[in-house]
Amino acid sequence: MAQMDVYEAMRTLRAVRRLKPDPIPRDVLSRVFEAATFAPTGGNAQPWRIVAVSESASKQRLGELYADLWRNYTKRFRLFPADMPADVRERTERTLKAGDYLADHFGATPVIAMFCFNPKNMAITDSEQPRPSVVGGGSVYTAVENLLLACRAEGLGCVLTTLLCEREPEVRKLLAIPDPWYTAAAIPIGYPVGRGHGSLIRRPVAQLVYQDSWGKPFQS
Amino acid sequence: MAQMDVYEAMRTLRAVRRLKPDPIPRDVLSRVFEAATFAPTGGNAQPWRIVAVSESASKQRLGELYADLWRNYTKRFRLFPADMPADVRERTERTLKAGDYLADHFGATPVIAMFCFNPKNMAITDSEQPRPSVVGGGSVYTAVENLLLACRAEGLGCVLTTLLCEREPEVRKLLAIPDPWYTAAAIPIGYPVGRGHGSLIRRPVAQLVYQDSWGKPFQS
Repeated sequence: MAQMDVYEAMRTLRAVRRLKPDPIPRDVLSRVFEAATFAPTGGNAQPWRIVAVSESASKQRLGELYADLWRNYTKRFRLFPADMPADVRERTERTLKAGDYLADHFGATPVIAMFCFNPKNMAITDSEQPRPSVVGGGSVYTAVENLLLACRAEGLGCVLTTLLCEREPEVRKLLAIPDPWYTAAAIPIGYPVGRGHGSLIRRPVAQLVYQDSWGKPFQS
Repeated sequence: MAQMDVYEAMRTLRAVRRLKPDPIPRDVLSRVFEAATFAPTGGNAQPWRIVAVSESASKQRLGELYADLWRNYTKRFRLFPADMPADVRERTERTLKAGDYLADHFGATPVIAMFCFNPKNMAITDSEQPRPSVVGGGSVYTAVENLLLACRAEGLGCVLTTLLCEREPEVRKLLAIPDPWYTAAAIPIGYPVGRGHGSLIRRPVAQLVYQDSWGKPFQS
């Protein structure tokens, strides 16, 4: 079993979009899935499932759907305005290139972990609020994050994607996902083509955490 | 800094509901919050914030709201039917007792991490689906899980709660949370009264992961 300090795993978990088609040993994959099972969920209901897709035809079809959605989603990011700062443009181009690679190779990833959820087994406490609901995700994305961290520890690349939710009816049909189960994320997993994981670009605590009341920065 | 294997942290991250009022050193708390910042979010937008509540009057009020919601939410679980198996009844009673403790002491927790989110900075790809949306949570609960795992590594007890979302307008007013920010979770954090973290009760991979298509168990 891969050993890695929990902070080290979190600090170096990148979105790895260039993945090799090489197969993943079954014991490695089992540990990654087991990590997901450890996650906390509301009432310990574990209202999620994974369909681990490695069969070629299904992956191919998911890849077609994904590439279509990706091209559509990124259209507006490709209109580089003339006054765009050079460094921002460069970073955007780099991200788009990695995303294009993923879109082109989605179906060749060794495993796509399709996370499903059952809203009937969730207490969705924000369902009455006049804004988009997120609380159901509290019993799914905790497990997703555990899976990503386990991939990191095992040297596997991976990236959390949700674009395929837009084509949920087709995805459900393809993978025989029954009522009342729906899709929350598709995570392609494979060994990295390049360096894979490494340092992150994130905002510091002082910008994201407040003390006692909104806007008062937390002093580290 | 606390060192702990990432699998060990996940495998022993319990919902710890009995928390001491003792203060948490600032450097420990800073590491826990920094762990949250490492989490992946859609487009790296980091559309979440934490209000770290340690001021007494605000905690007290949150505690009153929480206790009220908890009593209401658990009413139906306290009607033990006569034919309930003894072991199920015992486990339910144990969970209720720990939950009652949390509800009674919520306001005395040293820190309550109130996770907030901004739906305008999220690409909510499942917003058109005819079922509850969860995808917004994909950019919040990854950070929540990191925070919980960091608490585990630091020996801090914590538990993911979402009941307060039902009283979001009052919570937003209390903590001066502005438009368009909303609440996703309240996580009381403190040193455990008892043993705290330890072994978990979870379903095995074979029950939660399918191979290629729904219902075909993944063989570990």
